[in-house]
Amino acid sequence: MNKRIGKQTAALGEPPVIAQTASIVGVKEGEGPLAQYFDEILTDDKWGEKSWEKAESKLQKETALKALSKAGLSPEDIHYALAGDLINQCVGAHYGMRDLGVPFLGLYGACSTMTESLSIGSMLIAGGCADNVLCVTSSHFCTAEKQFRYPLEYGGQRTPAAQWTVTGSGAAILSKNGDGPKITHVTTGKIVDMGITDLSNMGAAMAPAAIDTLTAHFIDTGRRPDYYDLILTGDLGVVGSDILQELMLDDGYDIRELHNDCGKMIFDIEKQDVHAGGSGCGCCGSVFCGCIYEEMKKGTYEKVLLMATGALMNPMTVEQGETIPCIAHAVAIER
Amino acid sequence: MNKRIGKQTAALGEPPVIAQTASIVGVKEGEGPLAQYFDEILTDDKWGEKSWEKAESKLQKETALKALSKAGLSPEDIHYALAGDLINQCVGAHYGMRDLGVPFLGLYGACSTMTESLSIGSMLIAGGCADNVLCVTSSHFCTAEKQFRYPLEYGGQRTPAAQWTVTGSGAAILSKNGDGPKITHVTTGKIVDMGITDLSNMGAAMAPAAIDTLTAHFIDTGRRPDYYDLILTGDLGVVGSDILQELMLDDGYDIRELHNDCGKMIFDIEKQDVHAGGSGCGCCGSVFCGCIYEEMKKGTYEKVLLMATGALMNPMTVEQGETIPCIAHAVAIER
Repeated sequence: MNKRIGKQTAALGEPPVIAQTASIVGVKEGEGPLAQYFDEILTDDKWGEKSWEKAESKLQKETALKALSKAGLSPEDIHYALAGDLINQCVGAHYGMRDLGVPFLGLYGACSTMTESLSIGSMLIAGGCADNVLCVTSSHFCTAEKQFRYPLEYGGQRTPAAQWTVTGSGAAILSKNGDGPKITHVTTGKIVDMGITDLSNMGAAMAPAAIDTLTAHFIDTGRRPDYYDLILTGDLGVVGSDILQELMLDDGYDIRELHNDCGKMIFDIEKQDVHAGGSGCGCCGSVFCGCIYEEMKKGTYEKVLLMATGALMNPMTVEQGETIPCIAHAVAIER
Repeated sequence: MNKRIGKQTAALGEPPVIAQTASIVGVKEGEGPLAQYFDEILTDDKWGEKSWEKAESKLQKETALKALSKAGLSPEDIHYALAGDLINQCVGAHYGMRDLGVPFLGLYGACSTMTESLSIGSMLIAGGCADNVLCVTSSHFCTAEKQFRYPLEYGGQRTPAAQWTVTGSGAAILSKNGDGPKITHVTTGKIVDMGITDLSNMGAAMAPAAIDTLTAHFIDTGRRPDYYDLILTGDLGVVGSDILQELMLDDGYDIRELHNDCGKMIFDIEKQDVHAGGSGCGCCGSVFCGCIYEEMKKGTYEKVLLMATGALMNPMTVEQGETIPCIAHAVAIER
């Protein structure tokens, strides 16, 4: 039986298995340190399509099909597809999932969408409402940059705290039965807004949400940081990761040796000129579904707390004088 | 125990109760035939805020608080808030839910979001992962019109098939225990795209998705239309409703006497100059949470199939030559 523990956590009685994953990334991501893990690396970020948006939809579709194929499943075996992305009205997911013919539930959690989808997906399976669920997210540097910041042709300067939106997609198949790492606990974040207004410093905006959810997870479960081999945030980047580690230490949780961040891992931050690191739903998606899942299967990690973070504003709200509300969702993944 | 029946339906073993609802609508909606049902009718659609977007967030927040207050619950009693809206990056929900301090899962299903939230919320409760869930959606004529169509000041002509986005919000509280109508079945839609490209004819674009999900619901459950007292679609409007009724009849399901549509109910279509009727997440939200829930409690309806429909495009994708993918999610609500 599933049960609520504490204020924000569901402990899953029959934890679903992450049966398979897949990841496809863009050119720059394929030049980074995790290249060996991805199922496919594009040689052209438009991937033969007429627009970046169409390319992003193709990323989601092909990554989902790759995960299905690796798992030996067909779309008919999937009870729910849970997907999202950053483009207005989540059209990356809608056009990407259109041809699959799978019952579809659209999510928007900004860069937290990968763990939002794993959270809902695992609870639906553990609750007996589904046998197999497909979780997919994507982001694309070019679709995000033009929408959230400047036209690419403008060549706007980037501040040191800015992050580089990952071109990539990750897909995970959760199953009721089978082998693989299991999602045992789901800690769902509250919206946290500490008054940051700098759209070029998402790490600082999102770090308080990460702290809030991580602390809730430790309190709800009674676990300490060293229960985990790895506490992996989605895309706090260099700036946000430093804030997270420091403020958690102030609260008595030393995560410095255990914490890493997908936005720091996917690029060589010095050599690839990405300033504070990677970001986007495709960052956590491709790093988890590429690298971390593989390493868990190999036994490098036994217990991982995966927590993607998201900034829930849009450019218009910030122009209207609003601050940036953020969120973080955590799932405990254990072998 | 919950179980899967057929390809798209979850039958809930311990169906959650819709413990309470609330609705707040704008000026024009308050001049329509359902005025008596709404908890509050605005006298100014900006509601004292500096922008329409801020007004829409206030709509979500105040409607959620109203539902909590009517239910005698506080935000601490809510395990998940499931919310969404139509504004880019769903900021209506994010700023609206920001101050509640409730674990938050953001959804995007366009105008289908109300039943998407009821679907996921009821499955989370029935699966033992939550006791109380808050489901909220909103739309605002002015935020939608400027984003999806033309600047309001432009005064663009509207075609006869065009629908009028409802300014309004609906909130429902689902609970594990208590009295009230129960959500017994959840039929989740697939993305259906029949090639429509006319942004002024959403009813025609969405009707095939409604047909797909409704047919799946009947096949999965073995029920016939007359099992229900009311089959209520979200916002197909006049054009989409006619298509739905006609094509369902072709398939052997006569729903003509049983079907109504929130978009047809909320306005006096002749007198209020709304062409094909109302639309927007707030249409199904306010009509169900205002009128239908009240009438179910009174006993006017014993069994209602509520199915909101959504068009999953954005203006850019249509400009890029794409067609309009649509979806419909149904929940069976029974006393």
